[in-house]
Amino acid sequence: MKPYKEMTVEELNQELATLKLEYRRMQALGMHLNMSRGMPCQDQLDLSMAMMDVLDSSSDLTCEDGTDCRNYGQLTGIEEARELLGDMMENNPKDIIIYGNSSLNVMFDTVSRAWTHGVMGNTPWCRLPEVKFLCPVPGYDRHFSITEYFGIEMIPVPMTPTGPDMDMVEKLVAEDAAIKGIWCVPKYSNPQGISYSDETVRRFARLEPAAPDFRIFWDNAYGIHHLYDDRQDYLIEILAECKRAGNPDLVYKFSSTSKITFPGSGIAALATSPNNMEDFLSHMRRQTIGHDKVNQLRHVRFFGGIHGMVEHMRKHADILRPKFEAVEAALERDLGGLEVGTWTNPLGGYFIMFDSLPGCAKDIVARCKKAGVQMTSAGATWPYGKDPNDSNIRIAPSFPSLADLKSAMDIFTLCVRISSAKKILAEKQG
Amino acid sequence: MKPYKEMTVEELNQELATLKLEYRRMQALGMHLNMSRGMPCQDQLDLSMAMMDVLDSSSDLTCEDGTDCRNYGQLTGIEEARELLGDMMENNPKDIIIYGNSSLNVMFDTVSRAWTHGVMGNTPWCRLPEVKFLCPVPGYDRHFSITEYFGIEMIPVPMTPTGPDMDMVEKLVAEDAAIKGIWCVPKYSNPQGISYSDETVRRFARLEPAAPDFRIFWDNAYGIHHLYDDRQDYLIEILAECKRAGNPDLVYKFSSTSKITFPGSGIAALATSPNNMEDFLSHMRRQTIGHDKVNQLRHVRFFGGIHGMVEHMRKHADILRPKFEAVEAALERDLGGLEVGTWTNPLGGYFIMFDSLPGCAKDIVARCKKAGVQMTSAGATWPYGKDPNDSNIRIAPSFPSLADLKSAMDIFTLCVRISSAKKILAEKQG
Repeated sequence: MKPYKEMTVEELNQELATLKLEYRRMQALGMHLNMSRGMPCQDQLDLSMAMMDVLDSSSDLTCEDGTDCRNYGQLTGIEEARELLGDMMENNPKDIIIYGNSSLNVMFDTVSRAWTHGVMGNTPWCRLPEVKFLCPVPGYDRHFSITEYFGIEMIPVPMTPTGPDMDMVEKLVAEDAAIKGIWCVPKYSNPQGISYSDETVRRFARLEPAAPDFRIFWDNAYGIHHLYDDRQDYLIEILAECKRAGNPDLVYKFSSTSKITFPGSGIAALATSPNNMEDFLSHMRRQTIGHDKVNQLRHVRFFGGIHGMVEHMRKHADILRPKFEAVEAALERDLGGLEVGTWTNPLGGYFIMFDSLPGCAKDIVARCKKAGVQMTSAGATWPYGKDPNDSNIRIAPSFPSLADLKSAMDIFTLCVRISSAKKILAEKQG
Repeated sequence: MKPYKEMTVEELNQELATLKLEYRRMQALGMHLNMSRGMPCQDQLDLSMAMMDVLDSSSDLTCEDGTDCRNYGQLTGIEEARELLGDMMENNPKDIIIYGNSSLNVMFDTVSRAWTHGVMGNTPWCRLPEVKFLCPVPGYDRHFSITEYFGIEMIPVPMTPTGPDMDMVEKLVAEDAAIKGIWCVPKYSNPQGISYSDETVRRFARLEPAAPDFRIFWDNAYGIHHLYDDRQDYLIEILAECKRAGNPDLVYKFSSTSKITFPGSGIAALATSPNNMEDFLSHMRRQTIGHDKVNQLRHVRFFGGIHGMVEHMRKHADILRPKFEAVEAALERDLGGLEVGTWTNPLGGYFIMFDSLPGCAKDIVARCKKAGVQMTSAGATWPYGKDPNDSNIRIAPSFPSLADLKSAMDIFTLCVRISSAKKILAEKQG
């Protein structure tokens, strides 16, 4: 098929008539499909069911250092879990704190602590006239939601295929001491699925922020979430790079097992410098006596070590890969050559990013909804939910079954075509 | 034996010589005993080991309403857990939020949220010139530690055998709008082990605070932690009482299973009014996608219902009762009639409170330590760690074995006698 923009008004009208007929047919099927969130599917959750067997009433719930996981204590998490997550995050176990379920909670608490008590002795952010964060866009809505909640001004920074626009990041942080942080999903990013290049990471580690309490919020949520064995992105380890660059305290690195075992019962982790860790712990000592240690031990015994975890991720990949490929195939099949949008082909993570013609994203998502397919809200990938181009849509292929996903994509591409044809037609008719 | 104060200088010198000989003999035993924290002992933890069996790889981890506990979601906790904890806390499940491990964390977050965002639309506490809390004393050090961390001024309010001095509480909260909260452990209080009387609870529910954002922090940590079947304290349910009094939003009520199942892997809960709950949730929606639901389900299936939990608490009581009685017996045996201190005889909870002669508590605790017995620091039961009378000591009988506890109490009472004799002797020789 030729690009829509090369079609005549008559051809476009013809095309729209056909598409609308097809849309009504689809609507009549009364589907209810959800592609809005990056949730693992049933089959993926089943992969970790054996974790329910590793501890039983005959188990010794004592750590190697004698810690009874059932009782109080061990604020930094059990040593065995620090070691496992250390291997997973490519960090020294000494630099790691293990938390309960949800790394989002750790990120929220980190902003909250900076707000109430400041970062490493600096003025609490609540006492400052203004606090700003850099937000690579498109990005993760739940990150933006945290900074928005605290009234932190969010400055969008464009994403490129190698990560955020580093010229802009370097310039802004050097100039403005009100900029206190930047949200990053450096590997298989949300929503693009791209990974920061070596140069990007090196430039991050060498930032010269005007604010001494500027920190990189490095949410490495998909560090080992590859789709392929033979083609994988590689990300330079940021803590080591910061240390090498003489900026050891520049970064907070977050991760979790949410998309490895159970999002509803995982463990989260922070990796950071000794100075930052002492800053965290001085707060945490007031906040809790300790996080769930039995679940930490359960994770450790289930995986047996990082090799077990890597093998486990292969099984996730076997479930996710066909879904990603189905989405990409549908986009290519239905939209290839029409020049009505672009999309990413990630090697890992949970998302594919689609960019429609400007001004079409909200319309596409609304049309999908009316045909029973729930997409992530248009705009969600931008701070304050406002995509200035109204073009960005996040596709989350993980949760529906492969069959449902194919049906949902039929509807999605159809809606893209209708919306695009209408837009181009309107332009041609002036 | 006659009271020390009635002894002559010679008699006291004689007594001291005997006591010091005994102390050196004890010291030579090289004991290492810890009575500093209210930690359950090994045998108590073993009571819940069967909880490790209730879920296995063949279990259906789906709730009655279809929620898959393994996946994201369910911010308020699973319905089954709200029902169980509702029964435990004597509240409507609708008024309950279930959290992860540690109710202390929930309390901390509650203060932190009020600090950053205010209570139900009121000015964030960080924007106020001063914020004050009432602290019934002696009280719980970890409560005081939270308010101290936020720079909240703590005003001590004396405890009586029926709870805090309510005349003072009523007067202070009515007069001073800077007073935003009060810390309460209303049942089997920490450290006294006493419970608030009906009148005290009724007066709490009818407080008329000057501050619209004043809240009672009602930490009902020991609600079902009785020592006896036939003799139990009864506490009026505060939420219902506040509702009846026309003050539905006055209270945040906290609880957890930390001392029911595992302190290292329990679930915490909040009970509060619909208005307060919406206030909490508007914050939590930014903070996390949800707490550990699998552990919630594990608790629900382990107990089967509130009856199972009550039966379970009987087993805890069977372990704790002899320990409490051993402490009380040692105090009576070694100190009875000497008039060198008073102590409580609680019907539940985790602590016995000892009050020495003024000025002796630090000395007693230091002497215990030198003989290998770690007590809670003297002063810990007061804000800022400062007991103006230097007389209050918290005894935590749960953790040591019965044999160790008896040895520890031998040392404790010996140290009380030495310290008291020295003080009285000094006064007499004055």
